Amino acid sequence: MSTSSNLINKAVEQLSRFPGVGQKSALRMVLFLLKQTESDTVALSQALLKMRPEIQFCEKCFNISDAKLCNVCNSPSKDESVVCIVKDFQDVIAIENTGQYNGHYHVLGGLISPVDGIGPSNIKIPELLNRVEQGQIKEVIIALSSTLEGDTTEYYIAKKMKEMGIEVTTLSKGIAVGGELEYADEITLARSIKNRVSM
Amino acid sequence: MSTSSNLINKAVEQLSRFPGVGQKSALRMVLFLLKQTESDTVALSQALLKMRPEIQFCEKCFNISDAKLCNVCNSPSKDESVVCIVKDFQDVIAIENTGQYNGHYHVLGGLISPVDGIGPSNIKIPELLNRVEQGQIKEVIIALSSTLEGDTTEYYIAKKMKEMGIEVTTLSKGIAVGGELEYADEITLARSIKNRVSM
Repeated sequence: MSTSSNLINKAVEQLSRFPGVGQKSALRMVLFLLKQTESDTVALSQALLKMRPEIQFCEKCFNISDAKLCNVCNSPSKDESVVCIVKDFQDVIAIENTGQYNGHYHVLGGLISPVDGIGPSNIKIPELLNRVEQGQIKEVIIALSSTLEGDTTEYYIAKKMKEMGIEVTTLSKGIAVGGELEYADEITLARSIKNRVSM
Repeated sequence: MSTSSNLINKAVEQLSRFPGVGQKSALRMVLFLLKQTESDTVALSQALLKMRPEIQFCEKCFNISDAKLCNVCNSPSKDESVVCIVKDFQDVIAIENTGQYNGHYHVLGGLISPVDGIGPSNIKIPELLNRVEQGQIKEVIIALSSTLEGDTTEYYIAKKMKEMGIEVTTLSKGIAVGGELEYADEITLARSIKNRVSM
């Protein structure tokens, strides 16, 4: 999938590095740019060039941020007493987009994984303990994936938080809203029966 | 689908302008860039910024090109006596990728469409006649889509070429290679019976 133009081939090569973008899609993207004005390509490139070096990690919660403190930590309307613990900044985006959560976050940047040599001090757990010690946090919500590493990290954090007298909650597990019962896996279905909710 | 970072939101907005790239895919692309080094983002942006203004149209065949003449017109191994007439430079890429054609091209840049007020002189037909008048072309292959506009343009060009004593051929129409007979439309199937090939 190469064209007679080296300029186009180089652009295709770069764009096809994106996940889920193959050579054909990349070529379609390049042809799209060729049909738009030159200033559109400039605008795209400049948005990427400006973003990459200016993005930083929030000093407090380690979310991605345009400034020293992220928009969530900086917002006076967000509840400082509740902190949702997530693995990645993608999780912050997902939870913020639900519009159902009004607290702060703490981004671990990874999960405890003894097999890979990742212990509590290799992720942002010491920083979490520091934040809790400052006394404003009343509840932490642990929002990690239901995997071996997620469960290990959840267990470790829950234990530490309880020692410090903090209320600990975790995401409810169960069948997906709108999901067909027959397609739910057995473990999830079993969990949703065990944790059934009174109506 | 917006994040707490304006820098990211702007990059997502730009990337989601690509055809087939929604807000979610664009965000995934941005997060991918954030996980790569800064120089990767610079390389991508520079490839696009360099390509857009430097791409030009070949003086001879109107294919996209890095120089005044495109790689096909410049290649001594390509057969100058055969010219394949296509609508767009995408068609050149598609035909070149078959590896089965070794002649030159002529990119019309559109099709005759009386409804839209597009006549022969609005596309690169006068330039085609000029090329033919120079006397080196022996055969033209008309490779246009089987649509009303494609057929009109084909008919017009074929008539002109025959007047000038040039051999005219067109792409064979029929069922797709590897395609199921029952899924071919009736007109295509009828055409493939009428134009059957002796074995």
